[in-house]
Amino acid sequence: MALEQSLAALSLATVAAESATATKTLVFKPKTAKTATPIPILVFALHSTQTPAPAIAKAAGVKEPRLATDELVQQFFSTSAKEVSIASLNKSLAGKIKIVIDELIVNAKDEEVLELSTESSKAALPAKTINEFLISTGIELIPVDFSSQQLASAPTKDAKDVKKDTKKDTKSSKNDAKLEDAKLIGITVDKAKDFSSWYSQVVVKGEMLDYYDVSGCYILRPNSYAVWEEIQDWFNARIKKMGVQNSYFPMFVSARVLEKEKDHIEGFAPEVAWVTRAGSSELDEHIAIRPTSETVMYPYYSKWIRSHRDLPLKLNQWNSVVRWEFKHPQPFLRTREFLWQEGHTAHLTKQEAATEVDQILELYAGVYEELLAVPVVKGRKTENEKFAGGDYTTTVEGFIGATGRGIQGATSHHLGQNFSKMFNISVENPEGADKPRVFAYQNSWGLSTRVIGVMVMTHSDNKGLVLPPRVAQTQAVVIPVGLTSKTTDEVRKAINEGAESIEKRLKDADVRAIGDYRDIYTPGWKFAEWELKGVPLRIEFGPKDLTSEQVTVVRRDNSAKYTVKLAELEKRIPEILVQMQKELLENARKDFDEHRVIVDEWKDFVPALNAKNVILSPWCGVAECEDDIKDSSATKDDGEEEEVDEKAPSMGAKSLCIPNEQPPLKADQKCVRCDRKAITYCMFGRSY
Amino acid sequence: MALEQSLAALSLATVAAESATATKTLVFKPKTAKTATPIPILVFALHSTQTPAPAIAKAAGVKEPRLATDELVQQFFSTSAKEVSIASLNKSLAGKIKIVIDELIVNAKDEEVLELSTESSKAALPAKTINEFLISTGIELIPVDFSSQQLASAPTKDAKDVKKDTKKDTKSSKNDAKLEDAKLIGITVDKAKDFSSWYSQVVVKGEMLDYYDVSGCYILRPNSYAVWEEIQDWFNARIKKMGVQNSYFPMFVSARVLEKEKDHIEGFAPEVAWVTRAGSSELDEHIAIRPTSETVMYPYYSKWIRSHRDLPLKLNQWNSVVRWEFKHPQPFLRTREFLWQEGHTAHLTKQEAATEVDQILELYAGVYEELLAVPVVKGRKTENEKFAGGDYTTTVEGFIGATGRGIQGATSHHLGQNFSKMFNISVENPEGADKPRVFAYQNSWGLSTRVIGVMVMTHSDNKGLVLPPRVAQTQAVVIPVGLTSKTTDEVRKAINEGAESIEKRLKDADVRAIGDYRDIYTPGWKFAEWELKGVPLRIEFGPKDLTSEQVTVVRRDNSAKYTVKLAELEKRIPEILVQMQKELLENARKDFDEHRVIVDEWKDFVPALNAKNVILSPWCGVAECEDDIKDSSATKDDGEEEEVDEKAPSMGAKSLCIPNEQPPLKADQKCVRCDRKAITYCMFGRSY
Repeated sequence: MALEQSLAALSLATVAAESATATKTLVFKPKTAKTATPIPILVFALHSTQTPAPAIAKAAGVKEPRLATDELVQQFFSTSAKEVSIASLNKSLAGKIKIVIDELIVNAKDEEVLELSTESSKAALPAKTINEFLISTGIELIPVDFSSQQLASAPTKDAKDVKKDTKKDTKSSKNDAKLEDAKLIGITVDKAKDFSSWYSQVVVKGEMLDYYDVSGCYILRPNSYAVWEEIQDWFNARIKKMGVQNSYFPMFVSARVLEKEKDHIEGFAPEVAWVTRAGSSELDEHIAIRPTSETVMYPYYSKWIRSHRDLPLKLNQWNSVVRWEFKHPQPFLRTREFLWQEGHTAHLTKQEAATEVDQILELYAGVYEELLAVPVVKGRKTENEKFAGGDYTTTVEGFIGATGRGIQGATSHHLGQNFSKMFNISVENPEGADKPRVFAYQNSWGLSTRVIGVMVMTHSDNKGLVLPPRVAQTQAVVIPVGLTSKTTDEVRKAINEGAESIEKRLKDADVRAIGDYRDIYTPGWKFAEWELKGVPLRIEFGPKDLTSEQVTVVRRDNSAKYTVKLAELEKRIPEILVQMQKELLENARKDFDEHRVIVDEWKDFVPALNAKNVILSPWCGVAECEDDIKDSSATKDDGEEEEVDEKAPSMGAKSLCIPNEQPPLKADQKCVRCDRKAITYCMFGRSY
Repeated sequence: MALEQSLAALSLATVAAESATATKTLVFKPKTAKTATPIPILVFALHSTQTPAPAIAKAAGVKEPRLATDELVQQFFSTSAKEVSIASLNKSLAGKIKIVIDELIVNAKDEEVLELSTESSKAALPAKTINEFLISTGIELIPVDFSSQQLASAPTKDAKDVKKDTKKDTKSSKNDAKLEDAKLIGITVDKAKDFSSWYSQVVVKGEMLDYYDVSGCYILRPNSYAVWEEIQDWFNARIKKMGVQNSYFPMFVSARVLEKEKDHIEGFAPEVAWVTRAGSSELDEHIAIRPTSETVMYPYYSKWIRSHRDLPLKLNQWNSVVRWEFKHPQPFLRTREFLWQEGHTAHLTKQEAATEVDQILELYAGVYEELLAVPVVKGRKTENEKFAGGDYTTTVEGFIGATGRGIQGATSHHLGQNFSKMFNISVENPEGADKPRVFAYQNSWGLSTRVIGVMVMTHSDNKGLVLPPRVAQTQAVVIPVGLTSKTTDEVRKAINEGAESIEKRLKDADVRAIGDYRDIYTPGWKFAEWELKGVPLRIEFGPKDLTSEQVTVVRRDNSAKYTVKLAELEKRIPEILVQMQKELLENARKDFDEHRVIVDEWKDFVPALNAKNVILSPWCGVAECEDDIKDSSATKDDGEEEEVDEKAPSMGAKSLCIPNEQPPLKADQKCVRCDRKAITYCMFGRSY
């Protein structure tokens, strides 16, 4: 029975599908004794809601639910799994099945429009109608706030334990987190109260990214890929000036080569994805997908570099790498496949290599501060935290104010001669063939799409994304306003044509502008939608503006309003964009500066940490002491970690970096944790 | 015993490693009866020479040679596999082992310098010394021309048979193919006589690409990747004007989704690479690496497209895809991983979709003709040859004059509603919710790095690469000339500084110029090296030029010389580049036009084919007839196919496309092959 008909049978009038929110209906079969009749669980949720099996198991109090077979679905719903929807429900199923329902649907505003869809048909109905119908069936309804359950998808045992520990307070905190005036099209949770649900909503509803059916992989939609392209153009122009050339190396690497550099591979081995089969033939040698390309590239560096005249060799590639992490994935921040650039250079002298390491770190700081308006601290990683197999690692470290955590931005490594000795990347001594051969000094440096996640976390708010103008795919949206039923056709025409000419003039002035002339939406609806997508400027043009030859400009970040004379469009709009870019960085920097506190005494360390700060402390530089600081600062006080990482509730403060800019170190200053003498200030913090 | 010492022991003086050619030494163990003592095969070849096991087996007359264990190597050479080199050889091994030696080494000029290298050390020696030493050991030497043996790496049975069939003539033809004045740094075989050896030498020695240790995968070096970047910029600018947005979808796809569209997947299933393991854990669900992204993307199109206002949806991505072909791989043309762009668009009407298919095909023709100076024929694929799962496929077809074969350039597909019905990409009927839902009309279109191979095959010659100026990473190289021992320091200084200022002026004029000021190489050597790398213009600056305030400009493609006054540099050099670009296309077009012959009678078909033409013939449009033409035109006459594809010797003429531009079809014209009435002219040819 097609969806429309069954709904008709239920005498539910369908409404226009415009702006409907997609839903999904899934049927699960719990583990049941062979003899017993199974009680299927029908899951009804927003399409955008993640509904991991463990969360369903927990909610319905059943064991190991698995997607039901077509046979079982037929048996209970007399239709195929592809065609099942809540329209397949009826009173006769009461007591025979259970319904696990997304709280976002239960709590939806009556007039919100939801879309039911099956393989063959779709229908849109008001949330009220749907909820009333579900109740009318008399089937047991189990509402679940999946946003607080993401954890359930974490595979490890401690994860589950953690959940039990923190369940109560989480639950309640989650409910507090709901935004009062939330619309389904908008963000429904508060950034300040439930950061990680907020984050997944912002990236998905802001159309930066979508979840993908292979766990840990995500789709980069144009709104985020455009940011990446801006970064590529900016970075390419600068590294090419430095003499770096782009190239492309294969994504595959043989086990033999991958495992050549022991320290190096140790770090990656557990996360390497292996191709073992092609078509129907098993491969004789299993082949890895690169987690990074040192071992892919360096055998060829050895072949190509034959004389000191072949140095320096500076290659970069823009590619994707795969690290099959089993930790809880996070959009942009921790994904199994991610895009990045990886630069690999070989030099004749250590000095030349070291200089490049710093130049690249400056460029990374530039990507964050100039393009993404995100402030970073430049520094060096400790021995514990440096890149395995390298000599030392420099890094730019960011800060997420909402959670008080540090986040690694990008790293530039000096590899010394470790790899060049391993792969025999050597040249005859320029001082003479009789002198010993010289092994190349190497660097590698990488910046990934994680930068986009940091940008989103830093600037966005409860209305949705906030995109810095420099990297926004659309910088300004022109919207006709003030048109009512009373508006004369003449004025209506003038407004619409005026708006279109404004859009055109801005484009000609190299402002990335678009116009929203859809007549089925109210200006208010459009405002909300473009705010959600993070467009920096909204340009309103209505009857009043028409008469006084002006537009009203509203900034996305702070709602500041500007009145701009039409004559000055080409001059003022770019100015406002520049000003917004500048202020976004200033505000973020102020936040970072206020939450980077100097702590000399251990007693103040954990409190400062729990007050959502990162910490600058005098430190002895001893690895054991660093581990001790991490263990001793572990705590369960922090209310929000859970969603970020199942390990989080017991997460202590890691060393983030030894900042290049150091506070003055008092003579005979003790280490913040132990009795040894401090040799430097080190930045510690909880981190992503 | 380190390499230098053992060489010293052999009293061989090592020479400077500048410009030495790398070699490799490998030890193989043939299949031997358990009881018998194995006779190891030591293979000594240029590093750049491919030495497939079957070729070694054939040359040494042994069975299934495998790389020898360290144990065996120790036993015979008293050193590890990593340290073995010909310096490990001595008279006592005579009769106990065999040496398979690369003919490129046997035939090397006495003074050519070869580099021996082991894991721990390198040494460079004249070829003469090496060859004499090898003979002095008294060990059996088996010279092999591996370039004629590439086939041996083909896995299929017929491949081997083929080899036997054609061995004799191949061998001889190979020897004829050697270039008289070949240097090891240069191309050693003749494009006209041994096309495929010539091709692999040109791409490797021209530093476009390097072979990689995972078969079928290649490294794109800056010289070729820069071409790809030029294409990306040109193409991006144009599709963005069309409203296409770039994005990135995951490289992984679940079996369930991949196999959803049956016809579609049938075409790819045998070539899909499967990830089955991550770290040490077996994956519950095996995951495929995308061979193309229709099934990766369309489930999300279904989710994102909710109203006709969401159409058209136009996304493109630049990524790499994997097709694990078991056919003989070829640089750029047939590789297991390759870079491409894939556009995927969804439209409300068939007409709108069809228009886009043609617009994209025009852009593909533009990439070939405007950027790569390669002429193409636009047309439509037959039902046999179209993209599986689509409605129809349009294509640009190129022509490789040296082999007389057609080559598919790029394809733009109209998918109709096939995928949209499969994935339910549908919208409410704009004419009313009561009317049936409308399924989207979809296109997909792709252009890959294969274009670079076509460009190389078209323009390059026996001196090496010829790069069209538009896409050349380096457009002009400035070389100081005429400096002799007698040259005064003053003049020498003036020449070098003059050359540098010429380089700078050209760069400021946006000519991609570099200067070659290395003093250890003669101008002649530099000329050869830059010709090998395909730099379009050589700019010589010597004493005569200094006095008459001019430069001598030499074009790479036809050696045409121009004298350009220094005052006119910024004007003339770009003009010459434009002229060269234009003439490259004209010459290639002339060649294609002369070898695209109209054949109405079957008796003329195969002869025309064997005369290295592609053929335009009247055709009935019936698939069976198309197959019959292919079978009936199969022949072994063509001397050069072997290396291209093990199937080649029996390769018949495929239908390449039904050209958009048609010769007039006579009334009641018969099909070239059968008695049916011809409905169109179709282009047939042997192809890559």
